[in-house]
Amino acid sequence: MKIIIDAMGGDYAPDAVVAGVVDAVSQFDVRIALIGIQDKVEAQLKKHSYRPDKIEILHAPEVVGMEEPAITPVRKKRQSSISLGINYLKEGKYDAFISAGNTGAVVAASTLTLGMIPGVERPAIGLCVPSLKGPSFLIDVGANTDPKPTHLIQSALMARVYAKAVLKRANPSVGLLNIGTEETKGTGLEKETYKMMAEQVPNFIGNVEFNEVYMGKSDCIICDGYAGNLVIKVSAGLMEAAGQLIKREVKKDFFAILGAMLMKSRLEHIKKLVDYSEYGGAPLLGVNGIVMISHGRSSAKAIKNAIRATMHEVELNILGAMSKL
Amino acid sequence: MKIIIDAMGGDYAPDAVVAGVVDAVSQFDVRIALIGIQDKVEAQLKKHSYRPDKIEILHAPEVVGMEEPAITPVRKKRQSSISLGINYLKEGKYDAFISAGNTGAVVAASTLTLGMIPGVERPAIGLCVPSLKGPSFLIDVGANTDPKPTHLIQSALMARVYAKAVLKRANPSVGLLNIGTEETKGTGLEKETYKMMAEQVPNFIGNVEFNEVYMGKSDCIICDGYAGNLVIKVSAGLMEAAGQLIKREVKKDFFAILGAMLMKSRLEHIKKLVDYSEYGGAPLLGVNGIVMISHGRSSAKAIKNAIRATMHEVELNILGAMSKL
Repeated sequence: MKIIIDAMGGDYAPDAVVAGVVDAVSQFDVRIALIGIQDKVEAQLKKHSYRPDKIEILHAPEVVGMEEPAITPVRKKRQSSISLGINYLKEGKYDAFISAGNTGAVVAASTLTLGMIPGVERPAIGLCVPSLKGPSFLIDVGANTDPKPTHLIQSALMARVYAKAVLKRANPSVGLLNIGTEETKGTGLEKETYKMMAEQVPNFIGNVEFNEVYMGKSDCIICDGYAGNLVIKVSAGLMEAAGQLIKREVKKDFFAILGAMLMKSRLEHIKKLVDYSEYGGAPLLGVNGIVMISHGRSSAKAIKNAIRATMHEVELNILGAMSKL
Repeated sequence: MKIIIDAMGGDYAPDAVVAGVVDAVSQFDVRIALIGIQDKVEAQLKKHSYRPDKIEILHAPEVVGMEEPAITPVRKKRQSSISLGINYLKEGKYDAFISAGNTGAVVAASTLTLGMIPGVERPAIGLCVPSLKGPSFLIDVGANTDPKPTHLIQSALMARVYAKAVLKRANPSVGLLNIGTEETKGTGLEKETYKMMAEQVPNFIGNVEFNEVYMGKSDCIICDGYAGNLVIKVSAGLMEAAGQLIKREVKKDFFAILGAMLMKSRLEHIKKLVDYSEYGGAPLLGVNGIVMISHGRSSAKAIKNAIRATMHEVELNILGAMSKL
């Protein structure tokens, strides 16, 4: 299996990306092409030891910044790691593309270069989120902030394929994220989507209210990209703030420090459940290729886990399964 | 000071409301009118001892259900506790109205019965949320899900008055909740609002990204009611799930149980910081009267704290301060 990874993507690139790749190839049966500015990638690679047949470098002289418009790799920076990487993927010599770079740019370049799979009009980013009953698949977390009901139906059907293959749910249930639990709640978009889902989506269980996201009410939770982005970012910010608050409070008190030490292994287990870097990546679904979006703040560990998750998608032939929506 | 409280509002009404009221009048210098179905309220009151001159009952034969349309108290149930309570407030014999009932119904009845204060076109619900730098004032958390930029400007100006008076910030800073930090980010609504805020709102610090809500980046955080509602409900759901997860994990391990016991006082302090029932209520701003919305799941403690917060608003003459926007 051969995966291309954007060496220039993410806040800690190329250092964290290269470190994660070196770690991944030592553990997994995969070959990686690091795409980016050759000198910079080589300089990082030299710091590590690795089997040279497992890692190659593809040169891409341009870099898309985290804040540049989404259309940049397609319109202006055609020699960027995102643009060239997705082109290589399209040519078929590689199995997947991973980037922790500018999400909008990856979405736009993937959509325009790879095209969509049959039956899907718009891409959507999914993310496995923890819940009291094991992971749920939340989709869309930021690709399409202004979808039509048909787009949400298509996301729901893709989510079911994903949850079946990756989360091993026999008949994945689907919920619609909404401001209330009743059928009549929400904006025009949600009301229309509710009706269509009830008719077209198997195992549709109705609305999932905002405060039920982490309750495990359904295997898949469908929403527009604006709401989904808000859910994951507010949640990440809250966990970050709560973590800082707990540290600050615990430090004030010797017994609390001792208590925290005794709880350490359990707290670490919980941290693992909610830590984005354990999941590593968010699949971009709907495009005609396997593209994984990794968190902008990805650490080496997150990159390694994104590679593992991507390998899993390739092995399970997610793209093939999606083509029978 | 005389406050009317909706005895029939909330999931645990009238029991929790009556218990909270009895507790409040024993501690605070306030008189309360409980409005609701007389028999039911009396039956609850009989379970407690209290000074009879501190609590009166106002009979309202109808009840607005939590899921009825917002327009119900104005159109259909004019003899409901919400409708009659707000009418009594308008007559001027009482200083404020509190309800843990149907939020939409309270907003609609308040708006149509009390009218708006000069310079404000739409109501907005504010909420004090915890942050690493003390409470921030988040507005709107659910009154107006589809506002125009001018409505957000008006919310920002009201928020500044509130933060100055209640949170004691000398020159409250204002941030706009947005999907990114740059001026160019967000939907049309947010871009236009950003420009107007930069011109019209004092101490405007720019965008607050979704993951920065709890960082204390600004004293006031302005958003539409849909986004604000999503923020508070997703956060509440996450805290709830995290709490259950921690309990479940800790129980698996004797040392973790011991550790949790040692951390108890610190953890309780943190819980207090994030517990909605400590804040008790969310002020409905913009309407021409002091109206406090309490959480639908309000406990007796939450009701008591809502009464305290409402008294505080009356004492500070929030309504008078708002009239000079």
